[in-house]
Amino acid sequence: MKFQNIKFAVIGGDLRQIKLSNFLAREGYEVRVFGFNGIDFEENVIVSNTLPDVVFNADIVIGPIPCSQENVTLYTKYYEPSILLEDVFKYISKDKVFMAGRITPEIQRIANHYDFKVVDLLAREELAVLNAIPTAEGAIQYAMENSDITLHGSQCLVLGFGRCGKILAHKLKGLDAQLTVEARNPKDLAYIKSYGYRSLHLHDLKDNIASFDFIFNTIPSLILDRERLKLVKKGCVIIDLASKPGGVDYNAARELSIKAISALSLPGKVAPESAALIIRDTIFSVYSEMGVIL
Amino acid sequence: MKFQNIKFAVIGGDLRQIKLSNFLAREGYEVRVFGFNGIDFEENVIVSNTLPDVVFNADIVIGPIPCSQENVTLYTKYYEPSILLEDVFKYISKDKVFMAGRITPEIQRIANHYDFKVVDLLAREELAVLNAIPTAEGAIQYAMENSDITLHGSQCLVLGFGRCGKILAHKLKGLDAQLTVEARNPKDLAYIKSYGYRSLHLHDLKDNIASFDFIFNTIPSLILDRERLKLVKKGCVIIDLASKPGGVDYNAARELSIKAISALSLPGKVAPESAALIIRDTIFSVYSEMGVIL
Amino acid sequence: MKFQNIKFAVIGGDLRQIKLSNFLAREGYEVRVFGFNGIDFEENVIVSNTLPDVVFNADIVIGPIPCSQENVTLYTKYYEPSILLEDVFKYISKDKVFMAGRITPEIQRIANHYDFKVVDLLAREELAVLNAIPTAEGAIQYAMENSDITLHGSQCLVLGFGRCGKILAHKLKGLDAQLTVEARNPKDLAYIKSYGYRSLHLHDLKDNIASFDFIFNTIPSLILDRERLKLVKKGCVIIDLASKPGGVDYNAARELSIKAISALSLPGKVAPESAALIIRDTIFSVYSEMGVIL
Amino acid sequence: MKFQNIKFAVIGGDLRQIKLSNFLAREGYEVRVFGFNGIDFEENVIVSNTLPDVVFNADIVIGPIPCSQENVTLYTKYYEPSILLEDVFKYISKDKVFMAGRITPEIQRIANHYDFKVVDLLAREELAVLNAIPTAEGAIQYAMENSDITLHGSQCLVLGFGRCGKILAHKLKGLDAQLTVEARNPKDLAYIKSYGYRSLHLHDLKDNIASFDFIFNTIPSLILDRERLKLVKKGCVIIDLASKPGGVDYNAARELSIKAISALSLPGKVAPESAALIIRDTIFSVYSEMGVIL
Repeated sequence: MKFQNIKFAVIGGDLRQIKLSNFLAREGYEVRVFGFNGIDFEENVIVSNTLPDVVFNADIVIGPIPCSQENVTLYTKYYEPSILLEDVFKYISKDKVFMAGRITPEIQRIANHYDFKVVDLLAREELAVLNAIPTAEGAIQYAMENSDITLHGSQCLVLGFGRCGKILAHKLKGLDAQLTVEARNPKDLAYIKSYGYRSLHLHDLKDNIASFDFIFNTIPSLILDRERLKLVKKGCVIIDLASKPGGVDYNAARELSIKAISALSLPGKVAPESAALIIRDTIFSVYSEMGVIL
Repeated sequence: MKFQNIKFAVIGGDLRQIKLSNFLAREGYEVRVFGFNGIDFEENVIVSNTLPDVVFNADIVIGPIPCSQENVTLYTKYYEPSILLEDVFKYISKDKVFMAGRITPEIQRIANHYDFKVVDLLAREELAVLNAIPTAEGAIQYAMENSDITLHGSQCLVLGFGRCGKILAHKLKGLDAQLTVEARNPKDLAYIKSYGYRSLHLHDLKDNIASFDFIFNTIPSLILDRERLKLVKKGCVIIDLASKPGGVDYNAARELSIKAISALSLPGKVAPESAALIIRDTIFSVYSEMGVIL
Repeated sequence: MKFQNIKFAVIGGDLRQIKLSNFLAREGYEVRVFGFNGIDFEENVIVSNTLPDVVFNADIVIGPIPCSQENVTLYTKYYEPSILLEDVFKYISKDKVFMAGRITPEIQRIANHYDFKVVDLLAREELAVLNAIPTAEGAIQYAMENSDITLHGSQCLVLGFGRCGKILAHKLKGLDAQLTVEARNPKDLAYIKSYGYRSLHLHDLKDNIASFDFIFNTIPSLILDRERLKLVKKGCVIIDLASKPGGVDYNAARELSIKAISALSLPGKVAPESAALIIRDTIFSVYSEMGVIL
Repeated sequence: MKFQNIKFAVIGGDLRQIKLSNFLAREGYEVRVFGFNGIDFEENVIVSNTLPDVVFNADIVIGPIPCSQENVTLYTKYYEPSILLEDVFKYISKDKVFMAGRITPEIQRIANHYDFKVVDLLAREELAVLNAIPTAEGAIQYAMENSDITLHGSQCLVLGFGRCGKILAHKLKGLDAQLTVEARNPKDLAYIKSYGYRSLHLHDLKDNIASFDFIFNTIPSLILDRERLKLVKKGCVIIDLASKPGGVDYNAARELSIKAISALSLPGKVAPESAALIIRDTIFSVYSEMGVIL
């Protein structure tokens, strides 16, 4: 896919937006950036001091992921004075596109005053699926760092068989862990068997939890409560991938001396370059669907 | 899971129902069978000559898969005189269950005159998912039998990423084929990458089809039409898993001397015992969901 | 690697030599063939009626695999009158090379009268290793064809961890079989664990043999004798890859109604084209080692 | 295997010997330890203050790995005053066994004055093979920690196909890296293809080295010299598993801003518990070979 005349603006964000800007420039696109202090971009990236300039000329304006922490200003890890969402939005040209992560109703309401399209990248399923790759690798890295045993041959349990559960299970098996995957519905349990993993129904978790060396949680609810934690094997390492408040009773874990690690936002932490490439691919995938509109 | 007091009736069907009866009896269940001539069941299976007897005492009455070919009589591969659906249904006791495959509206209408529960096993997703295992193995066996090259190192294309596509891709990679999987929606394409396969968008099929040694189709529409078949590599083997009329223009394939094999109902053909176990597991899964009712 | 001016002669053999000739011609080499009646070679292959012509001009003369069945005449599956080894050898030019399979001392003695180099392709370890690929796939195909269950999830035993054992184990695990590999020495047992397979010491074979659905033998000695066969599970399928007399007491197997299949010379049977490519690669590998000499 | 009456002495060493002592005690063996200050052993381990007591009663005396750093005193990570090898040896009873790592000729010479058996654990191939498992996992962990991209989908090169090369390649493929393995001899290159990896001959390393994101070296010679390092891709991460002086020109790497990490003694660092289990398994394997002697 070639979209050679697209002009990009990248406004704020973190290391991923920096790497994304470099990638796009390296591929020959015109890329203007604003909202990064003291960052050395590669030479083809156009660093500007005036926000309007950067935004006004762009076909695609790329914002941070998440877009904002309080629905008023952009999230800018490397920039000090606040940038108001409003100040970005008012310069986006008619029919152009703004893409960022987590577009809340409040943000959408501000955008509605203007005449551009808004895309929530975090709502795109391909981004979520692809992000499961660095998330799974990060979970494996954290497990390795926090244990005295190898994953090879260890008893591993993955709780949940959604995006992260699927990819993490695939990789743990690839490392020759003894893998069990927990799910609840018969379809997921059937898929778990089809991929050659041992399946475990949630009903049977309590009876089996004592046998695992590693437990990876991907379920966004308090599945590892005090009662279950009490049964966990001595030395077991828990990696919790569920977003806050997470799937572990951390107080209980501390009291029971169980190593439980909350591992959030792994793609940006363990593989910012891959994370940036995933954003890039998603942007082009969205763009190609929009097709003729642009 | 133990459901020790369940009494089973198995009425008609093919090799899978025979093996299923043996399994259930071996596990200690009371199993009565009717509708099989000249079959040597294992010793604990109760072979009866009177249909009412068999049906009347059963908690679960298991019919064929598919249940019927014309919505009037049961499908009985090993039994000559026809057995009317009506004649089975009228003996099923109140609140008991009839499980078979492909319960059409016509069959359901007949059943509605009575007071038992009907379960269409083929509508159960866990059965469909688990059946993808023998289907994928069968597809691999057919590919091996019909080619002069190894799957190892060969260029393989899987068309579609549904149940069969997923499991078949997993197994082909396990045999070290050079694997590409075709899909259309961004989510599936993302999953394909996440499992480490090369992805191919349907748009790009035509431009790439010439490079494959094996093409496995799982898409139930005419995807391999004459135009695409013309581009296929000499010696390429096509295994078509899509149900009739299938995904290949077979006339065109014949004229172009392309080996295209329609591979249907593989579980019962290549692994009837595994297929019977899958039916068994599905029956118990349904039963356990029904829970207290029985 | 390009060796563009090499001239090949291919004399006798089976389907593999035919396919090999086609490959070489397709790659642009001059290829002359003799000893094939009624075979349609591809157009660039030069089919000749006079042996001396074919041999005399060649840099590399390729013979059959095996070279001869009685050390006097060439093995020619598709040619009727016998071709004496002597009649080939006497036309090979000084310093040129003859490559074929199984060069016995008797054959070597005949060759010694002349002034060319002799290479036994079957003595080349890369050929033996690469042949393990189609051998393993063939073993899998035979296992699938001869069983009512899937390899997926089945209990599989591989006896021996040499070339075939290694590759077969790798592929069975790739198909999600429950895999155990038998070996005797601690080093092999350690490797078996390192690849994530269950290991079984020969000492413990008798105690464990009853649990397997499939047994693949690669050990060239009578490992599956009557005593062990008596313990084998009902329905177990044995695939014996060991060369004659093989590793199974076939009489005992028949009496005990155990399906035991002697699977020999699989590469030429299940994947003659891949087998031909392996021969080709080995020829070039040998040639490149000889380097400057030629 | 049960050897229930064996009495063990564990003298000095590092974390692995501590964990080993705990394992053996947990399994019901009598275990006496000496040479560890301030370590909390599990309750069944007998901690003694007198060396002769510990050694004298033991059937198997386990020393450190490596046994000594200067061939005079034992290596004791957690003990201050030096323990002379001589002082251990003189108390080992007749016909008993001393097992430790790296028994140099000097150490052997001292032992020769006495009447016990000496086993160099590091000379046991099963130990070396099994140690390749934590080594490979450690290499993967280090690669993940030192890179901004995922291993998934990255271009990985493994230099060498010995013990570590084999297991590391297996695991990298299990993580869906794009894997190439370098070797020199045709047999290894054939095995590399048989496992489904891309193979690269050392001759072609220079022409291909620029394409890799990760390079794992297992070859104990200066393979990554300045000339080759100059060609390496920007951002490439090198993990060097070869023992000192290693396979990388570290000065050149520093000057060229290439991240090159010397990763030594990984089993004890990344998975001391697994490393201890491997030592345990090797001890029993040796012991079982010695059989009747003891």
